[in-house]
Amino acid sequence: MSDTLKNDRFLRALRRQPTDTTPIWVMRQAGRYLPEYRATRERAGSFMALAQHPELACEVTLQPLERFELDAAILFSDILTIPDAMGLGLSFAQGEGPQFAHPVRSAADVAKLAVPDMDGGLRYVMDAVRLVRKQLADRVPLIGFSGSPWTLACYMVEGHGSRDFATLKAMCWNDPALAHRLLDTLAQSVAAYLAAQAAAGAQALMVFDTWGGLLAPAAFKEFSLRYLAQVVAALQADAHARELPVILFSKGAGRHLGALADTGCAGLGVDWTIDLDDARRAVAGRVALQGNLDPAVLLSTPEVIRREARAVMDSYGNHPGHVFNLGHGITPEVDPEHLRVLVDEVHAYGRAMREAASTR
Amino acid sequence: MSDTLKNDRFLRALRRQPTDTTPIWVMRQAGRYLPEYRATRERAGSFMALAQHPELACEVTLQPLERFELDAAILFSDILTIPDAMGLGLSFAQGEGPQFAHPVRSAADVAKLAVPDMDGGLRYVMDAVRLVRKQLADRVPLIGFSGSPWTLACYMVEGHGSRDFATLKAMCWNDPALAHRLLDTLAQSVAAYLAAQAAAGAQALMVFDTWGGLLAPAAFKEFSLRYLAQVVAALQADAHARELPVILFSKGAGRHLGALADTGCAGLGVDWTIDLDDARRAVAGRVALQGNLDPAVLLSTPEVIRREARAVMDSYGNHPGHVFNLGHGITPEVDPEHLRVLVDEVHAYGRAMREAASTR
Repeated sequence: MSDTLKNDRFLRALRRQPTDTTPIWVMRQAGRYLPEYRATRERAGSFMALAQHPELACEVTLQPLERFELDAAILFSDILTIPDAMGLGLSFAQGEGPQFAHPVRSAADVAKLAVPDMDGGLRYVMDAVRLVRKQLADRVPLIGFSGSPWTLACYMVEGHGSRDFATLKAMCWNDPALAHRLLDTLAQSVAAYLAAQAAAGAQALMVFDTWGGLLAPAAFKEFSLRYLAQVVAALQADAHARELPVILFSKGAGRHLGALADTGCAGLGVDWTIDLDDARRAVAGRVALQGNLDPAVLLSTPEVIRREARAVMDSYGNHPGHVFNLGHGITPEVDPEHLRVLVDEVHAYGRAMREAASTR
Repeated sequence: MSDTLKNDRFLRALRRQPTDTTPIWVMRQAGRYLPEYRATRERAGSFMALAQHPELACEVTLQPLERFELDAAILFSDILTIPDAMGLGLSFAQGEGPQFAHPVRSAADVAKLAVPDMDGGLRYVMDAVRLVRKQLADRVPLIGFSGSPWTLACYMVEGHGSRDFATLKAMCWNDPALAHRLLDTLAQSVAAYLAAQAAAGAQALMVFDTWGGLLAPAAFKEFSLRYLAQVVAALQADAHARELPVILFSKGAGRHLGALADTGCAGLGVDWTIDLDDARRAVAGRVALQGNLDPAVLLSTPEVIRREARAVMDSYGNHPGHVFNLGHGITPEVDPEHLRVLVDEVHAYGRAMREAASTR
């Protein structure tokens, strides 16, 4: 699939193959820090209308690529499309996070959930993938994504965002069999959803386990990691997805990088609370690493942005398998020109590192 | 000082001396989960009025000890008393977190800050310490506390709570000298504040570095750890504080336990995202550990609470130096009877562990 790509740095780095420089994309690169995104979002009327309208979703997906030399596109969508398609009624109140009209609390609620039809309520996502692939015209690869089973369950059971998602945690302790039924249905759904994105044209797949890091180690393994592994295994058995690299990102779970690498994924997202040299040691070179600049660095000066970007790259060292990214999504207050500074520095310094190594 | 104490388990555990069972107290034990606390809070009118009224602060400090066999009292107060005494105008809007009327943003703002007079704007804290000591009548030791320099700076510069405290982070990158002046003034203030609490009768001291874990490793060392070490060193040079054990709690900084132990503190708070056996290995037995049950466990059933408490204690093992606690504050939704279950189980199981070891 990458044979026809004009820029396959990102996919090569995920395969831990040599690249001419370090590839970079940033989480939420199609987002509110861009005035053109805010204009399209305004036209759409609401966040979900934007996400569910393939032409508009395609438009905002491509916007950051028109401005910056990014090495991958990521589909504009939300991590909570699956529970929305399950009928839970997702909305985003002004200035608030996501809300579900029908949270999942009881055994009866869980029993009603089924793997959504990918040609039904989630067809708009596949339409958007197809449209983006067409308009991208093989400039860079397209990443499809989903929330992780644990993270979807957090919102579905709590009904909205939370500091601790204690309602789901209580379910895990009080009725672990029920929590496992919910998480198994979600793992099947996430795998089917990512496989459908692969069939529609996604060239890499990423799973956002945003809230895995809220769990104690044993609970992380039982309720988050286990289902991430189930998703990866299902994708490896899928005709369309088996060739695609899968990136897992468990925020705040730097302690579990070795166990996450054991799932058979191609790459791991790494937040900024662990140095990449420690992270590399933890995974012993078995997977690529994606990260890990503190997103708040983009609020500082161009000089600091360049220095901190180089520090991240120096920490990884001159090894294959690094995809530069932030350790979390880019925030709305960032000056878009600061992202340009970052992208250009990563490419320039990545080239310089490789040259220095080849002339030694 | 502990010669006259009727129950000195907590202080002995902090000195890593043998105890008859594992001592326990819980963060925010004087708090909203207790109906008697809510009644006193109602009478006070506001959270700050409650904290600033020594008789009422004393009353709520003692409330959990009337109900449960806790092994330490902790002064009822707020982590942000120092910046309030510096004139920043602290308030708690209904249902919101803390707010400062005058956030610190510029060099001029920082230059205006001075170490507060402990007999002036913070006298109410020392009055409360004296009153609690008197009314406690040596039943258990009293813990005095403060926010850490980094954590105080987070709120002072942002002006309120935040997910990422990006305003202070930007100051650290854009004008590190200014950030260091602010943090140095805060470290001097925290040390003076804790020394004054020691002089007033506090028997152990704790520093809450609630937001240290938001920093990347190098930034944590430069902007948080360095000032925690400054506070510990200043306390070790103080006539009243030098005999008191100091506990540091950097939430989300499990990666830095070894470096935190190097400060010379007596104990480290540990959140629930790291197993205590790993934490013990990280500090190589040099300090006591305090923690680390996920506070959400208290929302489950008594059976689960007992099982998870035993798992924490088994993870620490039968070594001296464990103070049982939650990994973060007890939440308002907890049934007080669940805390009784926890306290009683910790004491019973701690005794059983010691007996099993002595008869082997």
